[in-house]
Amino acid sequence: MPATTSPTRTDSRPDSRPGGRSARVRAAVHQAVKDLLTDEASDLLTIPVIAARAGVHATTVYRRWGSVSELLADVATSRFSGDLVVPDTGSLRGDLERYAADLAKDLSDPDTLALVRAIVGTGGEGASICRGERQRQLEAILEREQARGSRTPTIERAIDALLAPLYYRAVFTDQAPTPEWARTLVSHLLPD
Amino acid sequence: MPATTSPTRTDSRPDSRPGGRSARVRAAVHQAVKDLLTDEASDLLTIPVIAARAGVHATTVYRRWGSVSELLADVATSRFSGDLVVPDTGSLRGDLERYAADLAKDLSDPDTLALVRAIVGTGGEGASICRGERQRQLEAILEREQARGSRTPTIERAIDALLAPLYYRAVFTDQAPTPEWARTLVSHLLPD
Repeated sequence: MPATTSPTRTDSRPDSRPGGRSARVRAAVHQAVKDLLTDEASDLLTIPVIAARAGVHATTVYRRWGSVSELLADVATSRFSGDLVVPDTGSLRGDLERYAADLAKDLSDPDTLALVRAIVGTGGEGASICRGERQRQLEAILEREQARGSRTPTIERAIDALLAPLYYRAVFTDQAPTPEWARTLVSHLLPD
Repeated sequence: MPATTSPTRTDSRPDSRPGGRSARVRAAVHQAVKDLLTDEASDLLTIPVIAARAGVHATTVYRRWGSVSELLADVATSRFSGDLVVPDTGSLRGDLERYAADLAKDLSDPDTLALVRAIVGTGGEGASICRGERQRQLEAILEREQARGSRTPTIERAIDALLAPLYYRAVFTDQAPTPEWARTLVSHLLPD
């Protein structure tokens, strides 16, 4: 077995090879996308430009990901999956306040915001990946409260009242989504 | 004076010529952007591709708009400015319901949605242009109600409760923002 220094996630595309070189190419290409998103005008986010930055052949990138849209979806999967912890403060209000403040902080990070904007721009499945983990986290908070025997807002209502304004402010405006403002969203969703 | 068949809006860039050819180039380039946004993968939205589709030299497009981001902002200005009428149904609730249903219908149009997504993706000033007119319309509804002597939600609150979920659902999910759902947003903003 060759030693791997990169994540051991296996690629589901049939022409990829496991471990070693394949993982190194993936890491280099992902890093190139992140660098380009923050360093350069997004006009330049094309496969030849990404490949040059990563030091790999453009045909390698085309063969493995097919398009910028699919590549961004893969970067989003790495970025937004698996590292989210569901807050557990003991109350629904506390959990939602922690959740909203955490998401506000995350969306204030320029690298995250650049990736989210680029993903929306390509119109592929990446958008559902970058919101999906956050939506599942919100569902988990509501379901735990329901299991305690309490009534909660529906998930649709919680998305409209929390997730939507957080993403809207981050993506469409120049205002940073502050943790304080995020907590006022909770107070509107859960009036006293 | 040469006859013009295109809008007479004058371009503020110092190297543009008024009327005639300049207006025809602008119309052709705008149309090329709209065609490419709906016909092709957005990977291809580069200035050389746009110029070829419009039948003009790429240098003409670079000289006039500078980047895809600025060009999309100009297309957004044409698309989202000036044609919005502020609803006047006689009540704040009626006005907001009409407003939300109109915006839901607009964002369900695939051409509009493709333009909004592409604009978000370029990260330029286009995003404030495409939301700006809608925000001013909302402000006008609230201010008219205040002039009648009534209390209203703040503009920030109305943005969080109406504008944000409408744009979020359109841009981040596969669900169409229906007029019926849009009216339920108003019922949460203005409880009985």
